[in-house]
Amino acid sequence: MANDKKLVEAITSMDVDFAQWYTDVVKKAELCDYSSVKGCMIIKPAGYAIWEQIQNQLDAEFKKTGVENVYMPMFIPESLLQKEKDHVEGFAPEVAWVTHGGLEPLQERMCVRPTSETLFCDFYANEIQSYRDLPKVYNQWCSVVRWEKTTRPFLRSREFLWQEGHTAHATAEDAEARTVQMLNVYADFLKDVLAIPVVKGQKTDKEKFAGAEATYTIEALMHDGKALQSGTSHNFGDGFAKAFGIQYTDKENKLQYVHQTSWGMTTRLIGAIIMVHGDDSGLKLPPRVAPVQITIVPIQQKKEGVLDKAYELRDRLSNFRVKVDDTDKSPGWKFSECEMRGVPFRIEIGPKDIENNKCVFVRRDTREKIEVSLDEVETKAAELLDTIQKDMYEAALTHQKAHTYAATTWEEFCDIIENKPGFVKAMWCGDQACEDKVKEELAATSRCMPFEQETLSDKCVCCGNAAKKMVYWGRAY
Amino acid sequence: MANDKKLVEAITSMDVDFAQWYTDVVKKAELCDYSSVKGCMIIKPAGYAIWEQIQNQLDAEFKKTGVENVYMPMFIPESLLQKEKDHVEGFAPEVAWVTHGGLEPLQERMCVRPTSETLFCDFYANEIQSYRDLPKVYNQWCSVVRWEKTTRPFLRSREFLWQEGHTAHATAEDAEARTVQMLNVYADFLKDVLAIPVVKGQKTDKEKFAGAEATYTIEALMHDGKALQSGTSHNFGDGFAKAFGIQYTDKENKLQYVHQTSWGMTTRLIGAIIMVHGDDSGLKLPPRVAPVQITIVPIQQKKEGVLDKAYELRDRLSNFRVKVDDTDKSPGWKFSECEMRGVPFRIEIGPKDIENNKCVFVRRDTREKIEVSLDEVETKAAELLDTIQKDMYEAALTHQKAHTYAATTWEEFCDIIENKPGFVKAMWCGDQACEDKVKEELAATSRCMPFEQETLSDKCVCCGNAAKKMVYWGRAY
Repeated sequence: MANDKKLVEAITSMDVDFAQWYTDVVKKAELCDYSSVKGCMIIKPAGYAIWEQIQNQLDAEFKKTGVENVYMPMFIPESLLQKEKDHVEGFAPEVAWVTHGGLEPLQERMCVRPTSETLFCDFYANEIQSYRDLPKVYNQWCSVVRWEKTTRPFLRSREFLWQEGHTAHATAEDAEARTVQMLNVYADFLKDVLAIPVVKGQKTDKEKFAGAEATYTIEALMHDGKALQSGTSHNFGDGFAKAFGIQYTDKENKLQYVHQTSWGMTTRLIGAIIMVHGDDSGLKLPPRVAPVQITIVPIQQKKEGVLDKAYELRDRLSNFRVKVDDTDKSPGWKFSECEMRGVPFRIEIGPKDIENNKCVFVRRDTREKIEVSLDEVETKAAELLDTIQKDMYEAALTHQKAHTYAATTWEEFCDIIENKPGFVKAMWCGDQACEDKVKEELAATSRCMPFEQETLSDKCVCCGNAAKKMVYWGRAY
Repeated sequence: MANDKKLVEAITSMDVDFAQWYTDVVKKAELCDYSSVKGCMIIKPAGYAIWEQIQNQLDAEFKKTGVENVYMPMFIPESLLQKEKDHVEGFAPEVAWVTHGGLEPLQERMCVRPTSETLFCDFYANEIQSYRDLPKVYNQWCSVVRWEKTTRPFLRSREFLWQEGHTAHATAEDAEARTVQMLNVYADFLKDVLAIPVVKGQKTDKEKFAGAEATYTIEALMHDGKALQSGTSHNFGDGFAKAFGIQYTDKENKLQYVHQTSWGMTTRLIGAIIMVHGDDSGLKLPPRVAPVQITIVPIQQKKEGVLDKAYELRDRLSNFRVKVDDTDKSPGWKFSECEMRGVPFRIEIGPKDIENNKCVFVRRDTREKIEVSLDEVETKAAELLDTIQKDMYEAALTHQKAHTYAATTWEEFCDIIENKPGFVKAMWCGDQACEDKVKEELAATSRCMPFEQETLSDKCVCCGNAAKKMVYWGRAY
């Protein structure tokens, strides 16, 4: 049983080598694999099923706010990419170029979309004429390509899956409101579904999206104390509208430029789930995003009635995503496999349990074993899934809080960054030179200017000049 | 109200110019639009919502048969594409080539996937070792690129959306069974969800997929009498396995090649829905695939209580996909819009209806008006949606039967092809020369050798030699 053997070989401990632990989990939980295409990954069934959960639930939240899905071409003609100056500077160095179609060279080369602002703008320029055509709140689910030099499964690859929302509004206020609304949808999704707490805030000019007036971000803290940018929402003002000529006639019959936003989340979220919740036994999936929420493991399954009882339990639990592991592996192998794959809890049921009209629930997060009467499995399962979801969020929040520090002097700041992985709150003067220094000397970046500001001191932690903003800093993926 | 004005301009009648009628419907029902990328289309919200219905329902059917979803890279290195001789010959002339990543030329150019057999084979060669690893029944939803010279919305474009299933099995029998199983899933889906009858059969060698041993197809008949290949399922035997070295050790510890299949359906299905069911008022959507199944149109909506009643009805009908059109357009505009967009039925409700405790259901397919007591809307709505679904299938089946002819002589065959658009059943000797002659002289092709064979004569309709198979012929999209 080759698969089992591989599975129980110990994976690297996260305390010994977090990066290797991550790679081991990705591989042994069979989430993804390398391909013959350098820098591109194959998302395997266990990984893709998580993405399907994310996609379905996030898409439902989008639709509640009036989002409509569309599909744009995957190619962008070079002249179109070049229309907005900052945008092309940001993306041109990292796109893949198509130069031939069939046997013929193309008249104009095209890149594979790294993001689709330019295509949506080109479309909106034709589609929008009157204030009656606004707002446009469109989104697409697709893959994008960015020619990264170093790649890591889910975190950074040359092709990845995402959603990208692109909206057009009559006023600057409407655009700002949508930008913030979608950031909140993202933050709530991470909290409620992925059980991941985030810090919400605004990116500095240095870190904002190419072409945006303002970029808002949600930043999550991984188990190793590094930050992961987990979703961004951009307000473009009317910059793209001016570059692409997207105008509408308002109620007074005057020509106006639209105001635009875009916002996206990616398969990177799977990396966040792994690194926030996982442990040395593998993945730990919050119930709401787990493709399999409960695995039933029959004990002594060859004894009469055991498998039947397991199937009966499965049918009674059909409101949940439930599976019976009736393979010929040993119960021990099956337990390890449930743990590696992060199934929120398993149900063990054997001949003695059946005799006593009970079964045993074993939580993945705490490993607690709970005896449950067979008369109560439905209600107890529902309760336990809720409890695990809540407890996993609380555990992640406790970790985040315990690894969020404040620094008021440069020495303190350096000491924390070097020795205490986590977020560091510190004041900033607003000058990019200080960000550059932090990056160069400490390999850390400004994660965001949080919406919830505090005054830790009146001086920039870096240069000592008058402070303008409190910033979350940290090393990041 | 610019949009309304455009809407009610008469669209071209399908009897006058079917191709123009099709283009008009696509445009005015706002299903898709042209883009700045030649040959690529923008799928707009009304079109994409149909694709989402197709995707969700088909995916659920797949999963019932054990299909697991994955995601493969969109690029194929040239050397990988070239591993299977027939396959590369079939696809190399119509792929788009990526030659640069970022600012650097690539060491080996890559094509954007036209289909992913080669990537799955490369993956399976590593993934499959033992009989315990079989079968693999993987599928992906993605977009593919084929550099077509002439394009038409949904029917033929340089990029389109599809699903592609790729399976690997221990035996030839297992592969054949899966090939047929998926063809039946497709045929049932077209019948039950899209209300489209199909002919199931096998492609001739001339028409089969590049690299396949056998290609099975479902062929649907459009309103103009032209055929549309609507889904295909391929049995590869062990040809790809030998080219890519995909082997497993069987129970006797012997090395064996796997046997493979692939199968796909595309956004082309949206074209089929338009051309099978549509009429001169626009689209007609079968209820099961309609993104909006019922539109409630309030009459004299400014009168007190009308809008409230409309919203109350909507809430009572929340088991269905229902919408209230509470815009400030006139009821007449709203009716045309429901018709153009193919909403299966609308509910009209005004002050007098409310007084009489009733409303009016108006069917899109027959235009029949049905008075319904407000006490019975839920059950009557459910019944009517079922009835429309069934009636639309019956109407399409009647049309297909009325346009399926049989020919036993070449003269008869030519006369039918030239003058009676539809399927022509005729005997064939099995020689490709006859297929070539039919194509050259009549611009028609062999659609399939139907599973349900008949003996119309003992001679080939073309050359007069001994007949081997009864074939469906026709002109096709």
